[in-house]
Amino acid sequence: MNAAVSGVAPGPSDPGPRARRYAFLGPEGTFTEAALLQVPGAADAECVPMNSVPAALAAVREETVDAAVVPLENSVEGGVSATLDDVSFGAELRILREILVPIRFVLVAPDGVRLQDVRTVSTHSHAWAQIRGWAEANLPGVTYVPAPSTAASAVAMLDGRGGVSTEGLGYDAGVCSPVVVQRHPELRVLAEDISDNEQAVTRFVLVARPDAPMPAPTGADKTSLVVPLWEDRPGALLDILEQFATRGVNLTRIESRPTKTHLGDYFFSVDIDGHIQDDRVADALMGVRRICPRTRFLGSYPRADRREVRVAKHHSDAAFIQARSWVDNLKGQ
Amino acid sequence: MNAAVSGVAPGPSDPGPRARRYAFLGPEGTFTEAALLQVPGAADAECVPMNSVPAALAAVREETVDAAVVPLENSVEGGVSATLDDVSFGAELRILREILVPIRFVLVAPDGVRLQDVRTVSTHSHAWAQIRGWAEANLPGVTYVPAPSTAASAVAMLDGRGGVSTEGLGYDAGVCSPVVVQRHPELRVLAEDISDNEQAVTRFVLVARPDAPMPAPTGADKTSLVVPLWEDRPGALLDILEQFATRGVNLTRIESRPTKTHLGDYFFSVDIDGHIQDDRVADALMGVRRICPRTRFLGSYPRADRREVRVAKHHSDAAFIQARSWVDNLKGQ
Amino acid sequence: MNAAVSGVAPGPSDPGPRARRYAFLGPEGTFTEAALLQVPGAADAECVPMNSVPAALAAVREETVDAAVVPLENSVEGGVSATLDDVSFGAELRILREILVPIRFVLVAPDGVRLQDVRTVSTHSHAWAQIRGWAEANLPGVTYVPAPSTAASAVAMLDGRGGVSTEGLGYDAGVCSPVVVQRHPELRVLAEDISDNEQAVTRFVLVARPDAPMPAPTGADKTSLVVPLWEDRPGALLDILEQFATRGVNLTRIESRPTKTHLGDYFFSVDIDGHIQDDRVADALMGVRRICPRTRFLGSYPRADRREVRVAKHHSDAAFIQARSWVDNLKGQ
Amino acid sequence: MNAAVSGVAPGPSDPGPRARRYAFLGPEGTFTEAALLQVPGAADAECVPMNSVPAALAAVREETVDAAVVPLENSVEGGVSATLDDVSFGAELRILREILVPIRFVLVAPDGVRLQDVRTVSTHSHAWAQIRGWAEANLPGVTYVPAPSTAASAVAMLDGRGGVSTEGLGYDAGVCSPVVVQRHPELRVLAEDISDNEQAVTRFVLVARPDAPMPAPTGADKTSLVVPLWEDRPGALLDILEQFATRGVNLTRIESRPTKTHLGDYFFSVDIDGHIQDDRVADALMGVRRICPRTRFLGSYPRADRREVRVAKHHSDAAFIQARSWVDNLKGQ
Repeated sequence: MNAAVSGVAPGPSDPGPRARRYAFLGPEGTFTEAALLQVPGAADAECVPMNSVPAALAAVREETVDAAVVPLENSVEGGVSATLDDVSFGAELRILREILVPIRFVLVAPDGVRLQDVRTVSTHSHAWAQIRGWAEANLPGVTYVPAPSTAASAVAMLDGRGGVSTEGLGYDAGVCSPVVVQRHPELRVLAEDISDNEQAVTRFVLVARPDAPMPAPTGADKTSLVVPLWEDRPGALLDILEQFATRGVNLTRIESRPTKTHLGDYFFSVDIDGHIQDDRVADALMGVRRICPRTRFLGSYPRADRREVRVAKHHSDAAFIQARSWVDNLKGQ
Repeated sequence: MNAAVSGVAPGPSDPGPRARRYAFLGPEGTFTEAALLQVPGAADAECVPMNSVPAALAAVREETVDAAVVPLENSVEGGVSATLDDVSFGAELRILREILVPIRFVLVAPDGVRLQDVRTVSTHSHAWAQIRGWAEANLPGVTYVPAPSTAASAVAMLDGRGGVSTEGLGYDAGVCSPVVVQRHPELRVLAEDISDNEQAVTRFVLVARPDAPMPAPTGADKTSLVVPLWEDRPGALLDILEQFATRGVNLTRIESRPTKTHLGDYFFSVDIDGHIQDDRVADALMGVRRICPRTRFLGSYPRADRREVRVAKHHSDAAFIQARSWVDNLKGQ
Repeated sequence: MNAAVSGVAPGPSDPGPRARRYAFLGPEGTFTEAALLQVPGAADAECVPMNSVPAALAAVREETVDAAVVPLENSVEGGVSATLDDVSFGAELRILREILVPIRFVLVAPDGVRLQDVRTVSTHSHAWAQIRGWAEANLPGVTYVPAPSTAASAVAMLDGRGGVSTEGLGYDAGVCSPVVVQRHPELRVLAEDISDNEQAVTRFVLVARPDAPMPAPTGADKTSLVVPLWEDRPGALLDILEQFATRGVNLTRIESRPTKTHLGDYFFSVDIDGHIQDDRVADALMGVRRICPRTRFLGSYPRADRREVRVAKHHSDAAFIQARSWVDNLKGQ
Repeated sequence: MNAAVSGVAPGPSDPGPRARRYAFLGPEGTFTEAALLQVPGAADAECVPMNSVPAALAAVREETVDAAVVPLENSVEGGVSATLDDVSFGAELRILREILVPIRFVLVAPDGVRLQDVRTVSTHSHAWAQIRGWAEANLPGVTYVPAPSTAASAVAMLDGRGGVSTEGLGYDAGVCSPVVVQRHPELRVLAEDISDNEQAVTRFVLVARPDAPMPAPTGADKTSLVVPLWEDRPGALLDILEQFATRGVNLTRIESRPTKTHLGDYFFSVDIDGHIQDDRVADALMGVRRICPRTRFLGSYPRADRREVRVAKHHSDAAFIQARSWVDNLKGQ
């Protein structure tokens, strides 16, 4: 168990060395579980599947688990609204880690079913969006049946005693992660690698309570923010972006989401390069917070790709330290 | 039939006066149909329900309909990815009109079912997201079953001969628009106005082919754009926003969407105040197009709320005309 | 003697209560002396005329005087290069006060000379620039003869025993401040209020050594800076201005001056609204100093016009304090 | 006579081939005359010395000369106010050419005078500012006597019959350009190359009437503008700079000058890279003119240093042409 993980949910009530408990968006066999397994120490931890993102995050807040792994964005489908909205509006949480999982899909059915027999397919709507092209080309006239998760569409075929059947399910085949097949080899794979986009990847985050120790800066970090632009003010977004630009802070992701009050009010979910312990990031955060006093900090954590952030000399910590010392000296006169 | 609508889908192949054909995201009874009915002349038109946004837009492109009504964004759920992606990446289309529809939900079931009997509820996942709070408060322990549309969850209970039953459906009640109940009074309404947010509204757009005549400027217009920031360039978004800001053009909506190629590449779906026939808008579009040569114009059309756009004197058409004339005279010397 | 002045040039070597010594750009009778007389306590101080701005400032640096009054800019002629360059490149000094003096000119000559007799006129070249229009209209064909100061052109006519003559001077009349005539009533005034611009005003500054106590913030303050843009970098000035703009700091003056090394290298002499003890000013100075490490602080001091600076809520000290406290709390986690 | 010069002051009243007439800031022997001699064809032209910049420019406006050469800025002393103000506020003129002249000074006196004998020195105040360091080091205790031009301080010593004397002049030696000595070898040179800054250079401009044909673009051009910021509006300068920045137009010079009405109102004298025939320049000028309707165009002309202007692809003429064509097509629909 490495440092970052050993730091999850400690504090006065920490019962000492014990197995961690992690929630994840279940059931078993989802891509979210695959993401969780990348967290150091997860193999020895207790992993609790939850049936929704809000349920997984509620478990963190209620301290029934130490942390949760939930999807944040997908390279094809975009931001995961349930996660973005919950971490933005619910009680405060902290992102401790990001995890990238390549997305692969397989089409599974009971033994004996042939590809040409498949008339109806079930999976999660996001998965369907990612294989629709393949389905239209290879299963002409196929009907789509929504399922609550990718794994669910496959697991529902299992009778728990080694039998596989779609009887009464309303569909002929399911689309799920290859992980499900590894666990349930009795499922027959009708087609592999059926994603329309072979580069598809989903980004997950490990989320804990705000008192979890923040991961130390590594030189290759990200910081996540929620910036509500509640004023209907032209140029407000530009003002925010300039707070970053004047400190040389690069945006790596920006998503607008409705505030749910009325059409035209947005909040922005933003990832920036750098760690809050970097002076340019701390200074930019101060500027953003002044303009948007309800700005929320979601965490600073290492980039999954370990790509180092390049910083111009005049935005370096040294430049900030020298400039601050100059101003402080003058103010003291 | 007013001017804007009479202009839908004319051209050399126009067979002369005839009933228009409109596609919409079906089935009958969806909020999209309610939006379509606000289009002048729609009552006399042929309205064709389609089972997906891509299918509705494909019908426009294939000229089997004159135009289609599809949802663009919801005040609670945010942008509708299927629409944003299709108009951004598919063959070019034009938005001719925006339509706002307040969102109200009812819980329906067969006769005899009481609220306290409901254990499982089915509806579209977006609708579920908007009533989840009500459901958790009023139907403790309820299970959610996804449906392909709100109307579908209700219509599936009908046997077509006046009977209503959930037998074999896997759920006890559906959540749909009140319109469905108006058409099918045999459905029993267990609860009304069950949205968590009473102000919820969805914005729909009427979409036609690019050769459809553009609605004339009214002084209260919007223009929709797709701006792909395909370069991984810090500050690119800021550059784009400055092209608008330096001409006094206000953004009314900005959404980022993945380009589906790799994580971190985005395009922006943007609405701005004003019409392409307004000089400040045309000039800003030129600036954006220079920076992002794949910028796509989706249309200029009247604002549904008729709110006039206020323009500073130095961004007015008169200011542009005088400045251009000054420069042209100098260049001619 | 008020607080601001009592603070001039104290320190370990302060010999205790004594008359202050002030240098000013002489000779007696210049507008600079009129400015000095506005400094509280100046009437009781020893006032030393110097024959150039560099000489007056050198006296401050060499501690032969406590402070000096020199002109900084004129509403007609612009910045006074000698002052701007000396405070920018010489050993560091501090501006403690600004003083505005309306500029009025009189044409003086020996007794018996009539206006129509005047063929040659002498004064300082800046004064000549401000009365040239009047001279061309009222003294057709007049020839201009440069003088080292306005007062000098008049004082040279005096023989020290009450006599007035232009014999051997090479000109018929002089142009000077009315103050000179008050002291030397033997001068005959041929014309009054001969400025081409009746609103002309010159801004002087009281300059001391950097260890002089800084005037306390009053809510109506200015801060003067020198910002060398030694890099030939497109957009550098824009970067600097954005450091001010993102903190709501208004520029009240900006002058470019050559760095004297090669054509195209400039430094900027800048006045901004606010005091370095104001958080938004201190923060902007940090930003500017990061980008231009050789930025020089010339002082924060009360506005002569006492006009209060209006600050938007999100640029107020309170906003800075709250934002900083928020960031500091997060960094401490 | 090359194309640029043959284009000076043609038109219906052009009497056909004849010698040009040029005014310059005299007398003979000034650096301005040296600048004029760099203008192709000047050797064959009639060159008329004038005793002030306004007089030289008035001669152009009154059509008594074809063009005038006047100083615009000096690498040590900065902008030449008389020129900047006259071209900004007088009747419109056009800059056709810029000329760079290295500045060298010599100290001259009558025969027999030794360096150690010199107690008083006369020259133009700008020249004095550039040799003051040398004078203080080499002529301790020297007194400065202002002269209307550098040449005047030397020429006044000549009796026109080969004699040289300072009798009755009030000074012992003069400081002028080496050109004066070439013409008047009877002057004794006491010291050469006495500038404090050996790199000093003055930039002159050739100014004609606005109907003079504009020099064609060369790929290495400059454009000069006057931008009055008559509104006391925070951020106005930033707005102007952004009009340039959003089109990739680089500023090569910016000077603020008082508008002469009241303290704090400025106009900006600006040089930018590029020619008004370049699309990015024309577009930026439109933007600036909208914001400041009294913006004045002073001309587009080749850079004296022939350094080519590098333009990013998205600010190239091709990018403008494609973007304009795109917008025009859309507007025509």
